[in-house]
Amino acid sequence: MSELLDGFEQGKVTSAARLITILENGGDEAEAVMEEIFPKTKGSYRIGFTGPPGAGKSSLVYGLSLIFREEGRNIGIIAVDPTSPFSGGALLGDRIRMQKLSSDPGVFVRSLASRGSLGGISNCTDEVADLMDAFGKDLILIETVGVGQSELEVAEKSHTVIVILVPESGDGIQAMKAGLMEIGDIFVMNKADHPNAEHAARDIEDTLRLKDVAEGEWRPPVVLTSALEGTGLDDLVGRIAEHHDYLESRDMIRGMRKRMLHSRVKGAFMDRMENRLWNNSGIGGLMERRIEEVYSGTMSPYQLVRELEKLVRVE
Amino acid sequence: MSELLDGFEQGKVTSAARLITILENGGDEAEAVMEEIFPKTKGSYRIGFTGPPGAGKSSLVYGLSLIFREEGRNIGIIAVDPTSPFSGGALLGDRIRMQKLSSDPGVFVRSLASRGSLGGISNCTDEVADLMDAFGKDLILIETVGVGQSELEVAEKSHTVIVILVPESGDGIQAMKAGLMEIGDIFVMNKADHPNAEHAARDIEDTLRLKDVAEGEWRPPVVLTSALEGTGLDDLVGRIAEHHDYLESRDMIRGMRKRMLHSRVKGAFMDRMENRLWNNSGIGGLMERRIEEVYSGTMSPYQLVRELEKLVRVE
Repeated sequence: MSELLDGFEQGKVTSAARLITILENGGDEAEAVMEEIFPKTKGSYRIGFTGPPGAGKSSLVYGLSLIFREEGRNIGIIAVDPTSPFSGGALLGDRIRMQKLSSDPGVFVRSLASRGSLGGISNCTDEVADLMDAFGKDLILIETVGVGQSELEVAEKSHTVIVILVPESGDGIQAMKAGLMEIGDIFVMNKADHPNAEHAARDIEDTLRLKDVAEGEWRPPVVLTSALEGTGLDDLVGRIAEHHDYLESRDMIRGMRKRMLHSRVKGAFMDRMENRLWNNSGIGGLMERRIEEVYSGTMSPYQLVRELEKLVRVE
Repeated sequence: MSELLDGFEQGKVTSAARLITILENGGDEAEAVMEEIFPKTKGSYRIGFTGPPGAGKSSLVYGLSLIFREEGRNIGIIAVDPTSPFSGGALLGDRIRMQKLSSDPGVFVRSLASRGSLGGISNCTDEVADLMDAFGKDLILIETVGVGQSELEVAEKSHTVIVILVPESGDGIQAMKAGLMEIGDIFVMNKADHPNAEHAARDIEDTLRLKDVAEGEWRPPVVLTSALEGTGLDDLVGRIAEHHDYLESRDMIRGMRKRMLHSRVKGAFMDRMENRLWNNSGIGGLMERRIEEVYSGTMSPYQLVRELEKLVRVE
């Protein structure tokens, strides 16, 4: 592992990629990598992209990456979406175009396995983002599908959340929007060439107007884009900059970073506790002995839970 | 609460409905309700329905319910799907038709809030199913959207898992199928009148044939249905009965019930531990004092986790 870390220090992409695989596998080795990596992070800015499958998230991330590269930014892209071209899903043409990005040394692309079959964010997204940060990426773009609760998780991990929608939408998408409305800092109506695009964008603006936003607070804008034709991307880059400046002017980036660390420490602590309580204590054994009584109805599940709890002492 | 429990005993639907609301709210009161309810459960059979949004899950559940009612079964329906007509989503016509089911005293319909905007199973699904069981329902139908990891959760809670697919399918659905293929005991190709229906059904049969199934073990069948026209439903009811008989002949229902209880006790225990560790111990305070050091980079998140762990002793 120290060889990989040396390679990482020297900026070798292959070493960084192999360290990410270690992070994905988890366990003690992943933790050892993070111990080395964490002190090297510089506080990269993280932008989350979420929305329904087929809304064009990858094309948008691709288009924005080209602009950010022209601005001289160093970019990391994390795709946690099995249908994303970055992940090898979608059409071959898209996939090749996007994988070409990887040949630019200023861009580090990595797709991560998601927990569910159609989305859900990867458990190690934070760690991979930190690794890219320590590798010199100052801007991390995280793409996830907005299903299940993954949109809430991406919001926890991002400074700016961009919700991408398309004009044509079924019932399912409508319901999905309700959850997405809560978390977006910027809304994108993609496929601006669609005849319903402007109407759909106004619909979203109307919904957003119902939100209770105090004077001077951020009110999410709606941007019309066509990722395929590249229109609206400059406008979107401008809005991202505005949101960043808004957060900075209120000294909120510091607070967000602290909250992110807080939820990570809590998550890592609970993961370790689950393993320790369940696999490395007398609790598992007591459970096995008593579950028969629960099954036969002589003990309720909650009585058993209380009995298990007595084995744990907390200062 | 004792008044509600008396009403529940007397078979009052309004009392049962209010007790479910208590279960949904969680906490000590929910636990007290479960202590009363659990000993009254009789081991109802649970059928999970999952699949992409728009596949016609609700129509199928509705159609099957009518058949099960003719057979004299007492039915509980739990819809954990914001787009389900049972949940008040979808078209008004569907909604009215399905809510009419509720006026049949042999059917108890309840929709539960999902964790995410488009699916994810509710935390209290097991408890609500138990309550319906104790209320005399011998067959519980659970409808969820197959997104994120909810399809795995519904599989844990069901004796028979029915995966519902439709002939027309995009990229996202393809990826989704991969996860659904693992969990289905019966596959339904709905919208049998679609020109591609038979072809799509054969595709699934071909995929299922790749599965390693030992001699005498259950091999998931594919059933063609049209929930709207009511065709194929009798065939599906037959397959459900076959799967039930298969489980029973191998004495597997008992083992499944035990595994379900096991995962519930573990889940309830971890929920309580999280609350106790985080809100009712010195851990939260230590975290607040130390997080600043993590933020400033003088301590890694993992060092802090190890320090927090020292406050916990397990026998």
